[in-house]
Amino acid sequence: MELQNLIRDVPNFPKKGIVFKDITTLLKDPVGLSGATEELYNFAKEKKITKVAGIESRGFIFGSLLAHQLKAGFIPIRKPGKLPADKISESYSLEYGTDSIEIHKDAIVEGDRVLLHDDLLATGGTMEAACKLVEKLGGKVIQISFLIELIFLNGREKLKQYDIRSIIQYNSE
Amino acid sequence: MELQNLIRDVPNFPKKGIVFKDITTLLKDPVGLSGATEELYNFAKEKKITKVAGIESRGFIFGSLLAHQLKAGFIPIRKPGKLPADKISESYSLEYGTDSIEIHKDAIVEGDRVLLHDDLLATGGTMEAACKLVEKLGGKVIQISFLIELIFLNGREKLKQYDIRSIIQYNSE
Repeated sequence: MELQNLIRDVPNFPKKGIVFKDITTLLKDPVGLSGATEELYNFAKEKKITKVAGIESRGFIFGSLLAHQLKAGFIPIRKPGKLPADKISESYSLEYGTDSIEIHKDAIVEGDRVLLHDDLLATGGTMEAACKLVEKLGGKVIQISFLIELIFLNGREKLKQYDIRSIIQYNSE
Repeated sequence: MELQNLIRDVPNFPKKGIVFKDITTLLKDPVGLSGATEELYNFAKEKKITKVAGIESRGFIFGSLLAHQLKAGFIPIRKPGKLPADKISESYSLEYGTDSIEIHKDAIVEGDRVLLHDDLLATGGTMEAACKLVEKLGGKVIQISFLIELIFLNGREKLKQYDIRSIIQYNSE
C-alpha cells in the first residue's frame, strides 16, 4: 500500500494559502498505522537505540511506537511549562518570533543512543533545537525520523550532520 | 515489577499544594513502557476494539501503543484549533472556567467499537467530554482506560456507565 495515499490535503490550514498535510487519515487506518510504524522501525532497528524522543504532540504517536518496538525508553520533548521536574530549554525561530521546547534533565544519560522523531520535517527548526537538548545532556543523536518531509522547505540542510529518514516526501506544495 | 514505583511525585506542580504524578520516569524505562502497555492491552484484547482514541497530549502515548497492539485505528482527540478538517467540539468544566476538546467528524463511523485512553483519571471531566464526542459520531464506548487513577477525586462516579480500567491507583495525595 502507498502510505502517501492515506495523507489528506487540507487547504488553507492553519492559515490561508497553506496546504496542511493531515496525518489523521493515516492514523485511523490500522494498515496505515502499522505500515508506517514498520517502515520507521526498519530505519532504526540495527542502530542500538536506547532512547526515543518524540516532540509534542504529534511526535508522541510514532515516537512511543518506535520506543516500544526498539525496546528503548520514550522521552517526551514538550512545550514550555508542561514538564514538572528539573529541565532545560532551547529556543528556535518561527516565521514571526521564537518558540521553545523543553526536556527533563534526567531524561538522557551520558552515552544514550537517541532516535528523535516528529511527524513532519518542514524548515527543521524544532528538530534542530530538539537535537541540541539531547546533546546538552550527553546523548548521541543516532537518527532523526519523520513521517512526512516537505523537501521544498529544505529542512535537511539545517540537519545535515544527522542521519535523516522520512517515509513520505513532497517535492512541492 | 511494581509499575507504581516508576511514577515520580513532583510537589507543588503545576501549582503550590498539588503533588503531580510524573509518568516520564516510567516512560523512559523500557520495562515500564512495555509493562504498562501490556497491562492496558490485556484489559481490552477480547473487546473487538476498532478504534482507540487518545486525549492530547499524554493520552497519545499509550493510546497509539494500544491502537497498534489491538490492530485498531488511532484517533487523536485534541485541544481547540489543532485539528484541520471538519470537526465537532465538546466543553467541560475546570476548577475555574471551562475548556473544550475536538474530534474530526470522519474519525469514527457508525458502529465503531471505541477504547478511549488518557494517562490520568482525576475528576473525569475531560474523559466524559471525550466519550460524548465519540457517541455523537455513532461510536460505542467499549472501554476507557488510564495509566493512573486518583481514587480520592472520584472521577469514576462521573463515568460509571462505562467499563473503567486503570493500572496504578492512589487512594490519597
